[in-house]
Parts: sequence; structure tokens; C-alpha cells
Amino acid sequence: MVSLDQIYHASYVLKDVIRPTNLIPSPKINPDCELYLKPENLQVTGSFKVRGSGYKISQLSDEEKKRGVIACSAGNHAQGVALAATKYGIKSVICLPDGAPISKVEATKGYGAEVCMVEGVYDDAYRRALELRDECGYTLVHPFDDELVIAGQGTIGLEILEELDNVDAVVVPVGGGGLISGIACAVKKLRPSCKVYGVQAAGAASMVQSVSDGKIERLSQVSTIADGIAVKEPGENTFQMVNEYVDGLVTVTEDEICSAILALVEQHKMIAEGAGAVSVAAVMFNKIPVAGKRVVCVVSGGNIDVTILSRVIQRGLYKTGRSCAFCIELMDKPGQLQKVSKIIASLGGNVISVHHERASEASDINGCFLRIELETRNYEHIHEITSALAAAGFKLE
Amino acid sequence: MVSLDQIYHASYVLKDVIRPTNLIPSPKINPDCELYLKPENLQVTGSFKVRGSGYKISQLSDEEKKRGVIACSAGNHAQGVALAATKYGIKSVICLPDGAPISKVEATKGYGAEVCMVEGVYDDAYRRALELRDECGYTLVHPFDDELVIAGQGTIGLEILEELDNVDAVVVPVGGGGLISGIACAVKKLRPSCKVYGVQAAGAASMVQSVSDGKIERLSQVSTIADGIAVKEPGENTFQMVNEYVDGLVTVTEDEICSAILALVEQHKMIAEGAGAVSVAAVMFNKIPVAGKRVVCVVSGGNIDVTILSRVIQRGLYKTGRSCAFCIELMDKPGQLQKVSKIIASLGGNVISVHHERASEASDINGCFLRIELETRNYEHIHEITSALAAAGFKLE
Repeated sequence: MVSLDQIYHASYVLKDVIRPTNLIPSPKINPDCELYLKPENLQVTGSFKVRGSGYKISQLSDEEKKRGVIACSAGNHAQGVALAATKYGIKSVICLPDGAPISKVEATKGYGAEVCMVEGVYDDAYRRALELRDECGYTLVHPFDDELVIAGQGTIGLEILEELDNVDAVVVPVGGGGLISGIACAVKKLRPSCKVYGVQAAGAASMVQSVSDGKIERLSQVSTIADGIAVKEPGENTFQMVNEYVDGLVTVTEDEICSAILALVEQHKMIAEGAGAVSVAAVMFNKIPVAGKRVVCVVSGGNIDVTILSRVIQRGLYKTGRSCAFCIELMDKPGQLQKVSKIIASLGGNVISVHHERASEASDINGCFLRIELETRNYEHIHEITSALAAAGFKLE
Repeated sequence: MVSLDQIYHASYVLKDVIRPTNLIPSPKINPDCELYLKPENLQVTGSFKVRGSGYKISQLSDEEKKRGVIACSAGNHAQGVALAATKYGIKSVICLPDGAPISKVEATKGYGAEVCMVEGVYDDAYRRALELRDECGYTLVHPFDDELVIAGQGTIGLEILEELDNVDAVVVPVGGGGLISGIACAVKKLRPSCKVYGVQAAGAASMVQSVSDGKIERLSQVSTIADGIAVKEPGENTFQMVNEYVDGLVTVTEDEICSAILALVEQHKMIAEGAGAVSVAAVMFNKIPVAGKRVVCVVSGGNIDVTILSRVIQRGLYKTGRSCAFCIELMDKPGQLQKVSKIIASLGGNVISVHHERASEASDINGCFLRIELETRNYEHIHEITSALAAAGFKLE
């Protein structure tokens, strides 16, 4: 089991590898509590992962360092291992499934790793990593189920207590469980009264299910925008530590995760990835008893693909009435489009796209459809525009 | 003229109002220099403005405090004044033109200000603010042309030197000139060898033109995504201070600003508004001699409308080949769409939207058009897909 000594030692060793990530007050996410964010999305490599891999690599023997390390990941762990290995001047090989996003592959190479693309999915890449370890004598850096990796992640717990010694609760994203195991170990040993809660995506709740069943369960599939915590099976060490130290586990939905990402963008000018935002989502949507408490949410990472980010924002705009789309059925005669445009413009709606077509499915042979996408101010504004169109005799769908 | 004493005093006074914004190393924006960001987008209210208004308000007499303050702004200044007034327990009134974005109005109210919507544009709102000042005895907090406001912004200069005493150059966004006047005053008095550069949007370069003409010039119109620095005319104090302390002024284009915003999102998980990103754009696109230097870019704010942010990201995706759209002319017979989809799918392109129509303008009476929008990996990937379609006999536009 991981000891507090190890975590303190990791904290000492990591000083040259990591960047300070001071707590940020977050008064608006949930006004019922005094909330702070631990912004590990602003950590080097954009996630906390460099802590665990950094400490693990620092503790290798000279012989092991000479041979190098290997890891399997398409995400934050890959970048953490690559950067840490480069900092310590040793070789790193990262096995990636060949469907991995180009941006992540490039980032991993950019931190100095040798990338080995493997045909298939994660499990195939992992098998190949084990083969290469056996063939070439590399040390495998496991993404979570390793004492030293867990101790490295635990340094976040020490930092939280150092900055906010009277904290009542710490909320932590959970995938394989390495992050929460380390943090909970540090927090519970130093301040037993502080609660530690874990949060999983509802579409990948392997730790929740395992803890509830009292044994490690393997999910047949996982599906969530929070790809950083889409883990099918917890580790043995982490399962044990979560059982020992963690006060509760909850899940959040995809929509809740998206709302949390958007809230961090709007309120804090920060980008969190799905996995990084689940802790915030849990507090935002009252999944955890935080009223009147001093709470820290660990925002574990920010490596979200901008394509996904853009979709999350679009969805957020629709859901808050700042963007809308509707179809208008109108008579196919000159001047109709002009009439519609005039109404929209006079009410301050900003047209993004128009799609006008004669449609055989219209109720009238002379009918046609206009599909309009608008930028609007809020729901009230949308209602104002659609009411004005209806009042002018247009049929909206 | 602003004195160093005033800036030190402001720094002391502001300790209870502002949040620390430590420098962040930024190795990839321009690898030729050692770059740091001063992230004032992470400041309370999402911009540096709270410093100037906070210091100004703190120095009011008891009598003035009792009467309250007034300001005119649709943006960061409004939020800065509102928050600072609330912190000091005094009343604030903000005049806003009635076209101001709802989100900014709500934010200003949220910080405790009384909002006065004025029909018309900024100039109308400003006139109304002057009227209200005269009628009700409020003190006007000018957004930039005020000694105390400038001294407040100057505290950023002190903080930069405290963290990085051997800095070679500081790069600062310029609108009315309050921010750069304060920073340049502090930096030049403490470390004369350090260069201070100002950056304006090419579409709103009033300070650049005024300095070049040797007298204050008023632009008839300004147009830029960087609305926070879209100022038609510099102030008298700021014009004089920029002439005295600033080593150079440059401009950046709208596309350069968008690229800088996207780079901050991808590399730093941070949101900057257009005005906040111009300094980064100037270093990124080599507008300033930074090779071999230790440079700090002030990222002045992060209050970008998410609608605009979404557009900036979309544009960035197109420009980097991660999104594309093209039209295919095809014969209007069954199975064509299926053939096209198959080719795209087999090459890993992800269809976002399809628009299929019979079009009278097609070269052939049986022709029709397919407009397809795709998520792609990069330009090479796009080329791969379009080549495969062409090889299968499809005509692309």
C-alpha cells in the first residue's frame, strides 16, 4: 500500500518536473458551498498524469533508466510518460492504437517519445507494449495501478491541504482510480475529517459498479465524452484503496459534463476535458452533499479535442437559447424570404444559415420550406422572433 | 503624470481585491524566444480592468464614496467597476448602450452594479453617464484616461518584474492606452533596459496612428473581433505616456488574432478574448524583435462571447485541415450517395452534414449536387479523400 512518506517524497522529487497549480475560487458553480478548483488542466502536458509517471520514472534504477520505459495510451498518460522520460534523459516508447487522434500522436512525439502505432484498439496496443517490454527490457509505466504512480498523483492531495488546510471535501474524477487513490491516501492520513468523493461518467462507471458489487468488475463497453476516464476495469491496488479511503462515488451524465465544461469556459476562461470536468459537474448538479462546506474540485485535465470542444459549445448555445434553428413552411411565391428576413432582422436575430427548398412533403403543392439557423440572446428572444413570425401568418415547425 | 509611488501604493491597496496571476511559461508560441504569459484573463471579472477601477475607487473621499460611482462600458470596464465598488461597499451605476450583449449586462448586474440601458451606441451611453454624474453627484470612473486608473493597471508591471527580474521585453495590448501606460511606467522606471511594446488590432489602430502623426487622432470607425480594444481615440494622459515610455507599436490582423486565440486554447487550455490575444499574436507572427529574448505577453482578458469563440474555433479547424466542406456534382440515379459515403468512411472521414439537391445550374439535366461537411485529421487527409473521390469518377468543386 502507498504510504504518506512516499507521497511526501514524490512531492519533493517532482518539484523540477511539475508547475504549481494554485487553487482558484469558484463562487458561481454552486453558490451553496465555498468552492475551489485545483486546475491540473493548467499542469504541464495539460493534465495531472505527469506527476505519477514522473515519480515512477525518477525511482527507476540506473540499469532500468538505461533501457528506457514503455507505456500504452492514446491520451494524457502518453504525454506524461513522454515528458517525464525526456526530463530524466531516458528513452520512452508509447504504443498507440492506429485510430488515435493525430493531435495526440503529434503531442506525444513532441514531448520526445518514440511512437509505435499498433493496428486495432487499446487492448491490442497494450498487448504489443507488453511484448516490447519483454523483448527489449523496457519498464512498463502503468497508467494507474502502480504504487509509485499513485504516490505521484497523491501530491495533489498534499498541495490542496497546504493551501486550504480547513477543507471539508475533495471531489475527484475517477477512471482507473489512480488519481483518487493517491489524493484520498494523502488527505485521509492528514485530515481524516475531510471527505473524499469520486466521480465517474455514467457511461463508464466501472469503479462504481465494482465497489457496489464488492469485487472488481469489467465492463464490456464504455461510452462517454470523458475519454480520459473511459476505463473498463479498475486496478487491484486502486480498487482496494478506494474501498479503504473514499467516502462516496457518484456518476454524472453526458449533458451534465457538457454543461460543466461550458461553465468553466464562461466563468473561468479555462478549458477542461470531459474527464477533467466530471468533478465540477457533480458539484454543479448537486450529486454530492456540499451545502455549507469548503470544497475542492480537482479539474484533472484539459486535453479536449477542439472539434469536440466546438461541439460542446454549440450544444451549450442551443441549450441556453443563444442559438436556435426552425423550419418555416411558406408559399412558393416571390417576396416570402424577404418578409421573413425583415421580421428576424427587426428583432435583432442574427442569421447564420438559410436553407430554402421546394419540398414534395409540404401540405400544399405550392409550399416550400425554409430552414433558418439564428444567433439569439436567450429563450425569450427566440420566443419573441417565433411569435412575430407566427403573427405574420407563417407556419413554424 | 503617474508616479512609481502611486503604482506601489496601488499594489498594496489592491491585495484584497485582485487574485494572483502568476506567469505561465509558453515554450511553443514562438520557439525563438523564452516566452511567458501574464494571464489576466484568469483575474477576477476575467480581465485586468478591476485593478484600475479598484485603485480609483479606493482613493475616493468618504463624501464621494457615499454618493457612488458611474461608468460607461459594455465590457470589461463595467465588470471591473461593479466588482470594485461592491468590494468597497459603495453604489455603482453603469450606462450601457441597449445593443450590449445580454451576457455582459447580466455579468455586470451580477457584480452588484445598477445597470442603466441607454438607447443608441456607446457615445450616447457615455453622454448619459455624464448627465447622471452631474445630476446625482456620482464620480465618473474613466476606462483609461485617469492617473489613478493607470496606476492600478501598472501593478501588472510590478508583478512581472517581481517574478522575472531579468525580463527583456513586455508586450501589451493597446486600446485607449491605460494598461500599457501603467505597465510601461513601472517597467521603465525599475528596469530601463526592458523594452515595452504595444499591440493594436489593425482595424482599430488609433494609438498607432496618433503616435505616428505626433498628435491624437480620432478614427471615424473601428472594426475588429478584439472589441475590448476597439477604441476610436487614445486619451491625453495615455497618449503622452505611450510617447514617453513605449518602445514600439505594431498591429495584427483578424486572422492572426484568431490563430492566437486557438493556440492559447490548444497549448494552454485558456480562453483569451480578441483584445487579450493580440500580444500573443504579435509574438507568434514575428511582429516584434524577440529572438533570443526573455519575453512576457500580457493576456489582458478572457471575456469572449462563446458564440464568437465557437466561430473562431470553427475557422481554426478549417484553416488547419481538421474540418472541410466540398461540393460533388453527381448523376441523379440511385446508389450515388452510398458510393460517396463508402469512400469517405473507408478513409476515416467523419461526416458532419450532407446537403443533396437537384440543381438547375448543373451542367447536365440529370445532374445534382451533394454538399458534404467533414471532420478530418489534416490537409493530407482531406487530399486523400478528395483524390479517392476523383479517382472514382466524381466531379468535385
